[in-house]
Amino acid sequence: MTTRHRSRNPGSQTALRQSNQQRIISSLVSGGPSTQAEISRNTGLSNATVSNIVKALAERGIVSTAPTTSSGRRALSVSLSGENGAVAVGIDFGRRHVRIVLSGLDYQVIASESVSLPLGHSARVALEAAAVLLDEVLESNRVSPTLVLGIGVGIPGPIDRRTQTVIEGAILPEWVGITHSAIEARLNFPVYIDNDANLGALAEVTWGPHNGTENLVFVKIGSGIGAGLILGGLPFGGNMGVTGEIGHTPVHDHGLLCRCGNRGCLETVASTTVMLELLGRTSPTTIATSDIVRAALAGDHATLRIIDDAGLAVGRSVASIVNLVNPETVVIGGPLAGLGELLLDPIRRGLAVYAVPMLSENTELVMSSLGEEAEALGAVALVLRHAGLHTPIG
Amino acid sequence: MTTRHRSRNPGSQTALRQSNQQRIISSLVSGGPSTQAEISRNTGLSNATVSNIVKALAERGIVSTAPTTSSGRRALSVSLSGENGAVAVGIDFGRRHVRIVLSGLDYQVIASESVSLPLGHSARVALEAAAVLLDEVLESNRVSPTLVLGIGVGIPGPIDRRTQTVIEGAILPEWVGITHSAIEARLNFPVYIDNDANLGALAEVTWGPHNGTENLVFVKIGSGIGAGLILGGLPFGGNMGVTGEIGHTPVHDHGLLCRCGNRGCLETVASTTVMLELLGRTSPTTIATSDIVRAALAGDHATLRIIDDAGLAVGRSVASIVNLVNPETVVIGGPLAGLGELLLDPIRRGLAVYAVPMLSENTELVMSSLGEEAEALGAVALVLRHAGLHTPIG
Repeated sequence: MTTRHRSRNPGSQTALRQSNQQRIISSLVSGGPSTQAEISRNTGLSNATVSNIVKALAERGIVSTAPTTSSGRRALSVSLSGENGAVAVGIDFGRRHVRIVLSGLDYQVIASESVSLPLGHSARVALEAAAVLLDEVLESNRVSPTLVLGIGVGIPGPIDRRTQTVIEGAILPEWVGITHSAIEARLNFPVYIDNDANLGALAEVTWGPHNGTENLVFVKIGSGIGAGLILGGLPFGGNMGVTGEIGHTPVHDHGLLCRCGNRGCLETVASTTVMLELLGRTSPTTIATSDIVRAALAGDHATLRIIDDAGLAVGRSVASIVNLVNPETVVIGGPLAGLGELLLDPIRRGLAVYAVPMLSENTELVMSSLGEEAEALGAVALVLRHAGLHTPIG
Repeated sequence: MTTRHRSRNPGSQTALRQSNQQRIISSLVSGGPSTQAEISRNTGLSNATVSNIVKALAERGIVSTAPTTSSGRRALSVSLSGENGAVAVGIDFGRRHVRIVLSGLDYQVIASESVSLPLGHSARVALEAAAVLLDEVLESNRVSPTLVLGIGVGIPGPIDRRTQTVIEGAILPEWVGITHSAIEARLNFPVYIDNDANLGALAEVTWGPHNGTENLVFVKIGSGIGAGLILGGLPFGGNMGVTGEIGHTPVHDHGLLCRCGNRGCLETVASTTVMLELLGRTSPTTIATSDIVRAALAGDHATLRIIDDAGLAVGRSVASIVNLVNPETVVIGGPLAGLGELLLDPIRRGLAVYAVPMLSENTELVMSSLGEEAEALGAVALVLRHAGLHTPIG
């Protein structure tokens, strides 16, 4: 039940080699520096396989090797490169930004940078910007590209896990049809893709105060609304990888038409897009999401009302999630997280009204403390998990 | 993420012994007849532990032993008792019935019997009836009580897994507060309890045509409405074991008051209780659930209309489940399953309208083929899984 990101050809030599490489790195993390013979015993791989992969990893600087003796014989001791060693990269693509987080294999963040992008930019432009930013971040942190273990990529839209393709319903229509292969081809590193809300959930149980929570739901309220699920301690992707599509569950029988073609969907009352549209009617200037937070904190009545209505609707949707999967924790993330109690309070009221009392009373409801980095951090965690590094160290 | 049915004291000697016993039975199932030394190697248990437990199992007739030699030494060969050997029992408690299914360790059903109970009977009366029926079923099938591996018990209400107690919200208010210990004390066998919808789901992936489905939702429409979840191949119980409470998610803003204190819950439009109430207004005689099926199949317009409305509401709720957890299959069970397409068609329409198209199009929606035995069969599967026998043989 792990998030499986299939390679284009899962049975291929490349996929096999990658899986073997993961076993070896994982063995080095759990067992510390080991001889090649020890790695072979721990992983079940042949000496030749271990030797080949260790050699390749050493050339990329991910591991270092040193001669040693074992039972009186000459052997090669292998250890993971420490400081200034291998890194994992997380990239979060948004409607108007791309963010990159760089982390060591020890889950220590090395850098976090973002650039703005024009509204309605193409996926090609976004990928180009990401590639340029990545070069800059690596260079300014003196990290050789050969040390990049892999890149996790978060996209605000559903991804069909079977084809590894962004499908209809994405916040960025320009991304629909983009494949894992296309992203990998442009970035030129091993790439793992997932939906942004899924990565937010992964970040919360990895980096956040909810580290280790067994069942957690991350609800991202942004231009769209989606949920990421951690169930039984693992990212949950259901049959096709398209889970948490709560933005398109109707909450009002006779609500507005939604971009999905349905009516009264949660997104038609609680997305930042709709909030901005509603507030824009009475505002002489163009407003942005950050203005919503600012106006609400300043006590603007219209803004507070919009937030209250949105929060209640989200709370109702959270109630239906809680009734179904009974998580320990629901975390609210996205660009409105700065609203704190102003948004949390109506969500809490909605949850209390629409969930089974026993369940609403026993569900922790909190704002994300990871801010705008949640998705990119989750993307980093995706890479580290694929390398077999499942838990943060320290 | 398995359904964990904690013993009253999980660290107790009893719990430890039970866990060791499970390992031994499981080893005999997967490895076939083995010597005690082989069992010890396969399970990691000490020779003394294996010997003690084998002795106890042999006394109960669950395993048989025979002298043999291994590497030239005398040894004891242990094998699972075959025909007329050990059994697992499943008991399903309903509002007006109790059903018992008896199965061999090979998942072959030996017997299935039920008795009627008066409406509003107490839990004590139901347990008494179950105990009497169990004695009869064992006797008429010539199964010694010492051969009963354990009893799975299905109850139509939420069970708090932490306390192993039936909680508020049960269809049978008489059962609220009943504990696992109380049931075990009356039945005098090792007992495992779970919610009826959860057991329905387990039955579907064990005995039904959906054997092995990774993600399956079983929706039980009866006096109440609840869902059982199989996620990632395992029964999913969330934080407290109270999952699938879809009957109390509101579907109409200004609907009827529900017994849970909320308004417009799914149960207020689609439970058999409400259907009977609505149809009763125009019927000169008292009607039962079986009359709904009969009248609908005979083409009665009022009944068909009620079923259509109920189906649409259930379909909407199924849509919200499908949007959230993206299962391969949704199975509709309960006493209305005999309606077939008459009920399935409006559910399908509701699903199509309220779910993301990509998801509704890729979700199999079917009626349960297990009929009234689904829950009791699931209860049997619960016992067999606890014994380490995870898959049906043959």
